[in-house]
Amino acid sequence: MSLKIYGDSASGNCLKVKWTAQRLGLDFSWVEIDLMKGETRTPEFLAINPAGQVPVVVLEDGRPLAQSNAILLHLAQGSDLIPADAYERAQMLEWLFWEQYSHEPYVAVARFRVRYEGQAVEDLDPKLVARGASALQRLEDGLSTGQFLVGDQLSLADVALVAYTRLAGEGGFDLSRYPKVQAWIARVETDLPITS
Amino acid sequence: MSLKIYGDSASGNCLKVKWTAQRLGLDFSWVEIDLMKGETRTPEFLAINPAGQVPVVVLEDGRPLAQSNAILLHLAQGSDLIPADAYERAQMLEWLFWEQYSHEPYVAVARFRVRYEGQAVEDLDPKLVARGASALQRLEDGLSTGQFLVGDQLSLADVALVAYTRLAGEGGFDLSRYPKVQAWIARVETDLPITS
Repeated sequence: MSLKIYGDSASGNCLKVKWTAQRLGLDFSWVEIDLMKGETRTPEFLAINPAGQVPVVVLEDGRPLAQSNAILLHLAQGSDLIPADAYERAQMLEWLFWEQYSHEPYVAVARFRVRYEGQAVEDLDPKLVARGASALQRLEDGLSTGQFLVGDQLSLADVALVAYTRLAGEGGFDLSRYPKVQAWIARVETDLPITS
Repeated sequence: MSLKIYGDSASGNCLKVKWTAQRLGLDFSWVEIDLMKGETRTPEFLAINPAGQVPVVVLEDGRPLAQSNAILLHLAQGSDLIPADAYERAQMLEWLFWEQYSHEPYVAVARFRVRYEGQAVEDLDPKLVARGASALQRLEDGLSTGQFLVGDQLSLADVALVAYTRLAGEGGFDLSRYPKVQAWIARVETDLPITS
């Protein structure tokens, strides 16, 4: 049995798992789960992930694993997407936890409100917008000296962070205010490569 | 130079770093940073962590590292707090990311509102309370078959999750509704051991 990835193609959290599997050359199948149609709430899906969230993967041996960044770390073990140096590896983990706590809840949520709930950018909660902008600025600062977030090559930190950053414009954020972030997005998209 | 941990003793995110260092028998010093007094906003502190957050550690070689769970993973490398089995390690990571995304923002935030901002439990945002209760139920379910969250011994998943779970009562959650969680808290407190 090959790896199965259950995900919604509109979700950056799901796409980053797909990109990682592609980049690693893994044999996998993608099972499309439409969040907006409630497909994470069916008995079949809840049997795989009782938390009712995507992404979730079913490994070759049939065991499930959830949480996008935990999946990335598991799939990429021993690959060049995880730095060999212990401190760089720790910095990569720092970015991965920061992404879920201080970036996704603002940058991805703003995009979700606008694109999927039809909210006008002007009507977004100002706190949400401010925190999203602050996360983008933190990325800009993090890219002040290097081409990638950690060390001098692509790592899971870039994969995880690019997923929603490249879509930030859909949530009303003006990426042209973050030129290093814009250049980094183009670099990561080419490097991965991201085709969808 | 020995490890320096900058943290606020009232913060579970900070205490879990201290407990891990103690459990590992590391030589470290604790630098108390009072969040409520704005001590994460001083120029001295921002020079260490520009994000203005605790915990942050300064490693033996003088390099800083932030994000509580990234610090835990770095400090505990090669120890029995990280399962040797690849799937168990992935499950531990799943809990660590879940903790920051689906537990801390509700269980810890409710406690912060009540204990440090003086909000009455009855006045808490019902959505916050519901999500916190749901996180506690998920933990109860996760403990239905084992003594610890992953495998049959203490791991970083327990250390990270116990930090705010043991204080959930301060945010108005009734831990007696989660008997397996209550027993697990006592077990982890003894095992770590947690003395403050």
